[in-house]
Amino acid sequence: MSSRYFTTIAHIEEKEIAPGFFSRFIHTPNNTINFITVQAGSSIPLHSHLHEQTSMVLEGKFEMTIDNETQVMQPGGYCHIPPQVTHGGTAITDCRLLDIFYPVREDYKML
Amino acid sequence: MSSRYFTTIAHIEEKEIAPGFFSRFIHTPNNTINFITVQAGSSIPLHSHLHEQTSMVLEGKFEMTIDNETQVMQPGGYCHIPPQVTHGGTAITDCRLLDIFYPVREDYKML
Repeated sequence: MSSRYFTTIAHIEEKEIAPGFFSRFIHTPNNTINFITVQAGSSIPLHSHLHEQTSMVLEGKFEMTIDNETQVMQPGGYCHIPPQVTHGGTAITDCRLLDIFYPVREDYKML
Repeated sequence: MSSRYFTTIAHIEEKEIAPGFFSRFIHTPNNTINFITVQAGSSIPLHSHLHEQTSMVLEGKFEMTIDNETQVMQPGGYCHIPPQVTHGGTAITDCRLLDIFYPVREDYKML
């Protein structure tokens, strides 16, 4: 049951932030946490932002490029993207990902 | 394979931070991310800290108390603990949890 302190991911509205990328956002005072499901074959083009980003794969396989390095991430895989470093990627299979941003993604609040 | 940007949780040293609570820490410049496995029946007593904390259950059931509210969290369950708010909990089953702290838990770097 949702309350002041507790909720469930399922209670958060899902938004398609890019073709095949379906996000549920939590914005705390300092972080944005992004629970993403991605359809196999969907890509996010290379981009960068002022936010520090930490990403992990909860289910599936996701090919991530950071700077000039590419790795296929699987469950238990983790990456850290410093501010302004170029990154992007492609879902090899259907995926569940978790992104953590600092500071808050004010741009995502507008979606 | 670990590199400047990528690693896997399994490559991070595990530390028993309280009886039955086994943590793997990632410290970014702004956040501490804590991947925890908890043995059924293990408890963290009520405590508080200056850090904002976001916690979620990846596997199992964890009974969490925040302020004066108690809920049993399951996969997909999420809670937010503002700074200085008292919290603690007990693993109902073996669990996997994920905690996100802002700012960095300098005290955990010492463990």
